[in-house]
Parts: sequence; structure tokens; C-alpha cells
Amino acid sequence: MKITQAERDAVYKTIFNRRDVRSEFKSDTIPDDVLMRILTAAHHAPSVGFMQPWDFVIVKSDETKQRLKQGFLKANAEAELLFEGERKDQYRALKLEGILEAPIGICITCDRTRTGPVVLGRTANLDMDLYSSVCAVQNLWLAARAENIGVGWVSIIHDEVLHQTLGIPEHIVPVAYLCLGYVSTFYEKPELEKKGWLRRRPLETLIHEEQWQAK
Amino acid sequence: MKITQAERDAVYKTIFNRRDVRSEFKSDTIPDDVLMRILTAAHHAPSVGFMQPWDFVIVKSDETKQRLKQGFLKANAEAELLFEGERKDQYRALKLEGILEAPIGICITCDRTRTGPVVLGRTANLDMDLYSSVCAVQNLWLAARAENIGVGWVSIIHDEVLHQTLGIPEHIVPVAYLCLGYVSTFYEKPELEKKGWLRRRPLETLIHEEQWQAK
Repeated sequence: MKITQAERDAVYKTIFNRRDVRSEFKSDTIPDDVLMRILTAAHHAPSVGFMQPWDFVIVKSDETKQRLKQGFLKANAEAELLFEGERKDQYRALKLEGILEAPIGICITCDRTRTGPVVLGRTANLDMDLYSSVCAVQNLWLAARAENIGVGWVSIIHDEVLHQTLGIPEHIVPVAYLCLGYVSTFYEKPELEKKGWLRRRPLETLIHEEQWQAK
Repeated sequence: MKITQAERDAVYKTIFNRRDVRSEFKSDTIPDDVLMRILTAAHHAPSVGFMQPWDFVIVKSDETKQRLKQGFLKANAEAELLFEGERKDQYRALKLEGILEAPIGICITCDRTRTGPVVLGRTANLDMDLYSSVCAVQNLWLAARAENIGVGWVSIIHDEVLHQTLGIPEHIVPVAYLCLGYVSTFYEKPELEKKGWLRRRPLETLIHEEQWQAK
């Protein structure tokens, strides 16, 4: 199947305008058919040995979100202690999640036992199943952006909180907790770039020809 | 920036028609400007704390490819031993990489030390940097597909081979070795599904409402 130039440009537009959203979530409901399209896109991510190790736990209730928010607050208080001086003030001024505001939360997991102990393509590198679930995250993120829905990845939370709050079995790894919702605006640039936390690296410093070069 | 319905459909078309390519690579050169567009898309993946931990080692020489192919053959011989009976025959009949045929190879790495020891968002889960590099892989894969270029992820190779062959420093993790090239055809379905290795799981068995449900 051929992708046209207009379609190609649409893919780039979506990739370059995808953002990690924390503060701009609106409360508008995401229709079920839209959510299913986004999940179908995630389910069509590449997976090692066609293992499809992912599951999707959909969070809508305030009670569940409140418990997850408490988990974030605890992990974030621990995180704050690791920064010093001006950097700490800067860190504390950032809003880093929208757990309560986003109408939908999705935990994407990895079942490391799926399809049995030996998985085609996962013999030399055992983490390939986790990487497959991350590919599902990125497919979901881009599909959501194409639906003009914002996504925020909440990484400042301990796995135990996700396991306990969502009843996820011990052998299943919670790879990502994502907040989804329509947004008031998408920033033109990543929020951490806009707010001066770090700058975008020049691409040419990241490209090596044939062999790693010290740069 | 609003994504239109036509643009949304283009994103879905690209996601659903992306394939892991092993046997259909053509030798046609990928123009430099096309390669740069694809790498720019990868560089615009989400990264934890805007860390941008990735680098891209571009492989074009036959000599390098031959060394990597030897690494694949060794890891694949080890892998074969893990399958038994009919499954082993089925495994051996599959072509699992196109290292020599694809005009370009790209190793996407993760520099776990980039931006210092404390990274915003990577305090509760230390693997977030690896996950960021995987998001770059998936952005690259979709951008390539939008350029009608096929990608194959060679996971049956040991990290040491990538480190040694490409001169990658010890503290840098090679996350993925990807083969890129124009293709004679894209399969309609994943190759492992088409060839009966495993079936696609019904999406509804992977969705859980509010809490994990045994399915």
C-alpha cells in the first residue's frame, strides 16, 4: 500500500506536534469509538515474535485517580529531594501530571509470560517484550494526537502503586500510565524546552557515520 | 495545531500498514534528505525530562554489515536450540533479518548518563530513558513507512556485537539495530501472522475496565 505525499506530510505534522500534556486537559468526554480507534492503533504496534504482550487498563473513576494522584505526590516528594538550589525551585514550579483532570487514564502493561517462556526474537535480548509495549505507547500517543487528544505520561509513580491500585498481577509490568483528554491548547514546543529546563540537542551531534564518534 | 480528519486517516493508514521487513528490501539508495527527515522524526520522540538520550549510528558499508550478519548468525544458532520439534522447523524456515540486503542500517542507542545523574521523571523508574529511545525507534519506523521505506528490527544479536562492531562506548546501550530500505512489497499483515506463527489477539481480551480482570 502506497503512502502519498500528502499522507506523509500528515504523519510528520502529527509527529512534530505531539506533546506531553500536563496542564491543558479539558473535562470533555472522549467518545468510546474514538477511544477504541486509539487502542486499536496501540494494538497494531510492532511486537517481538508477534507476542503482543500489552494490556490496557482504562481508568475513569475519580476514586482510582485520587489513589494514583497520592502515589504521584509521594514519588514526587522523593524526587524533589534529589534536586538542589535553583534547579529544585524550578522543579517544584513545574506541573508534571494531570491525573485528576484528564477524563481517561490508561495503564499499558507488559505480560512477560505471554506465549510461553521462549519468544522468537527475544532470545538475545530479554527486554524486547518491554520495548514492544513501549512501541504500543508511542502508537497510542500519535493516534491520540491525530484525534486532537492530548496524552501525558506519568512516570513519577512507583510500580507498586499501579499494581495495587489497578489490581495488576505481580508478573505483569506496568510500563506506562498515560493521561488522555482533549486540550485547551497544544504547546508549539515541548513544555520543558519552552520553560528552559533543557534545550533541544542539534540533530547533527547525535548522528554517527559507520562508527561511534566522540562529539 | 488542529489535525484534520484526512490527516488523521493518513496516520492510521501508516500505523496499520507498518511492517517488520526482512525479505523484501531493494538495493535502491535512500536519498540523504529522506534519511534526514526520518531521523528528525525520531529525534522528536518524547523523552523523559527532555533528556533526548538517543544517538544514531548509520551503517552503510558492506564490511560493517558482514560483521553484524555474523553476529546475527551466532545468536540465531543459539536461538534455534531453544525451539523443539515442529516449532523448530518452522523457526528455521523463517528469514528473520535483512542486514546485508538493506542499504542502510541504523543503531539507535541510549546514553544513560546524558544530562547527569538525576533526570526529571526518571526518579521512580530508572528505565524511562531506555523507553524514550524506544519511542524514537517507533517514530522512525512510522516516518519511514510514510516515506514508503521498510524497516526491520534485528533483535537476534548480542549487545557486545553492536558495541564492538560500531565502537559504541560501554555506558551507551544499543537499544535497536534497524535495517532500512525501499521494498518490493509490504505484506498486508504481519509476516508472523501470515505464516501462522501466532494469531492476532482479539483487542477486547486486552482491555480492562478500572481494574485488571482475569480473561
